[in-house]
Amino acid sequence: MLYITGHTNPDTDSICSAIVLSYFMDGAPARLGKLNPETEFILKRFGIMEPELIKSAKGKELILVDHAEKSQSLEDLDEGKLIGIIDHHKVGMTTSEPILFISKPLGSTATVISELYFNNMMPYIGGKNKELKPDLAGLLLSAIISDTVLFKSPTTTETDKQLAEKLAKIANIDDINKYGMELLKAKSSVGKMSPEEIISLDYKNFDFNGKKIGIGQVEVIDVSEVEAKKQHIYKALEEKFKENYDLILFLITDIMKEGSEVLVVGDNKAFEKAFNTTVENNSTFLEGVMSRKKQVVPPLEKYYIK
Amino acid sequence: MLYITGHTNPDTDSICSAIVLSYFMDGAPARLGKLNPETEFILKRFGIMEPELIKSAKGKELILVDHAEKSQSLEDLDEGKLIGIIDHHKVGMTTSEPILFISKPLGSTATVISELYFNNMMPYIGGKNKELKPDLAGLLLSAIISDTVLFKSPTTTETDKQLAEKLAKIANIDDINKYGMELLKAKSSVGKMSPEEIISLDYKNFDFNGKKIGIGQVEVIDVSEVEAKKQHIYKALEEKFKENYDLILFLITDIMKEGSEVLVVGDNKAFEKAFNTTVENNSTFLEGVMSRKKQVVPPLEKYYIK
Ligand SMILES: [Mn+2]
Ligand SMILES: [Mn+2]
Repeated sequence: MLYITGHTNPDTDSICSAIVLSYFMDGAPARLGKLNPETEFILKRFGIMEPELIKSAKGKELILVDHAEKSQSLEDLDEGKLIGIIDHHKVGMTTSEPILFISKPLGSTATVISELYFNNMMPYIGGKNKELKPDLAGLLLSAIISDTVLFKSPTTTETDKQLAEKLAKIANIDDINKYGMELLKAKSSVGKMSPEEIISLDYKNFDFNGKKIGIGQVEVIDVSEVEAKKQHIYKALEEKFKENYDLILFLITDIMKEGSEVLVVGDNKAFEKAFNTTVENNSTFLEGVMSRKKQVVPPLEKYYIK
Repeated sequence: MLYITGHTNPDTDSICSAIVLSYFMDGAPARLGKLNPETEFILKRFGIMEPELIKSAKGKELILVDHAEKSQSLEDLDEGKLIGIIDHHKVGMTTSEPILFISKPLGSTATVISELYFNNMMPYIGGKNKELKPDLAGLLLSAIISDTVLFKSPTTTETDKQLAEKLAKIANIDDINKYGMELLKAKSSVGKMSPEEIISLDYKNFDFNGKKIGIGQVEVIDVSEVEAKKQHIYKALEEKFKENYDLILFLITDIMKEGSEVLVVGDNKAFEKAFNTTVENNSTFLEGVMSRKKQVVPPLEKYYIK
């Protein structure tokens, strides 16, 4: 049985990409954790069921979407049969056999999947030539908006914008910006969440040369709600750090200001060197930094690998 | 400037894939070492110049073909800008940034490139919509034949056979089998070579969990020429082993018998466990084993990683 799954602490791109790709590949969409409020909002909006929660790769054929990093996947991934990866991140893992691997430096995995669809390339990746229904087009559009922060993130490409337009037409969404702001508000609604919940909303582990690094992120329109909880979030990060981490970063991204406050736990020196900055009171503000993938992971990885 | 290069100790698939992809991507084909006699025969046959030898990645944009393994690439790969990988091997490396990655479990990289061409997907990977000329079709066909050992290797897929037919028509080659036997003979002509030359014909390094493994292979129609030099080849392997290896394997593949004698230097225990066999007089015969990629690398990698 073929399962298609995104990463742990799933974001909208992971969930929506898994659902849409499953439709074309005749597989079952899966998730590795709880949906965040934004994704819940989107699935409700388009009337789509949440994917099945899976905890083991055993006996499963697997296609990974939206990650290529073992530390972000099922713990027993090697017990399953990995047949493909469809992604838009850096290549963060090796495999023991040749697989289908399609990755492009685009704004979201949903963009990669949309491009495959509009180019009639589903058969190329072993999928079926079917029509993209309005509800699934809505999911892909939502994932593009979410990952590119409504086209504001520096990861945004022309392809993301163009395919979003095409998807919006199919999904019958007249005003992408208006719909996008609704999404960002759903993403920003952290007021009632505990510090632990806020951290795990979008948290990813990395293995850089044997070092264990965690990077969480929350993207908000109005930082005041998160600001008010900053001390508690830091405490929770310190607690998490005890799980054998070398460094934990937590990005509080201000979508309007287009920059991120970074809370740093652990190897401050590494962070300061990698980003040529100084940490004061366990935090620093990085002007223009909105993307973990494009602006935070590469300098850190370079620092640790060299 | 964009360079497209295959792996060190280049084989026909690496060289031909680099040349053909360069044509579509407006890049320069490059090689990381001396051509083998088979590849020389092919380039002469179709009147194509050998690619430029490069020794450094510095200042270059790079697309890797036919490998996804740092230990098989330029030593200073990280000094260049890696923009893509087009391959058919296991994923053997990580990157620090998102790149274009197209890999499928097909018989050769030339098959992957042919499929992109026949599906009009060159623009999808950033290439141009041009016509494949007969000489370049001949190179792709030759690389498919070489990598699949004239469709005898267990790595061979239906796609390899189908696209070979299409390429043969464009290249004006009426009898694929007859042409294939010519190629295999050119590949087999090791009579005048030194043991060192025979070893380096098709030799690849791997890094399995920090262990340094070398795996060489020679594929011959008639094993008697290599058999006669076996003791000298083993001596040369022992010499090579001093370069800090943990294990070196050398496959003498009998194309007719469809199996390989394996010469083993170093960690015999690892080899015996991974392949459930016993080594006598530094060697063993593996029935049905013709593909390093599909039949030798995966069990070894599993042994070392776990
Ligand atoms: Mn994504
Ligand atoms: Mn190859």
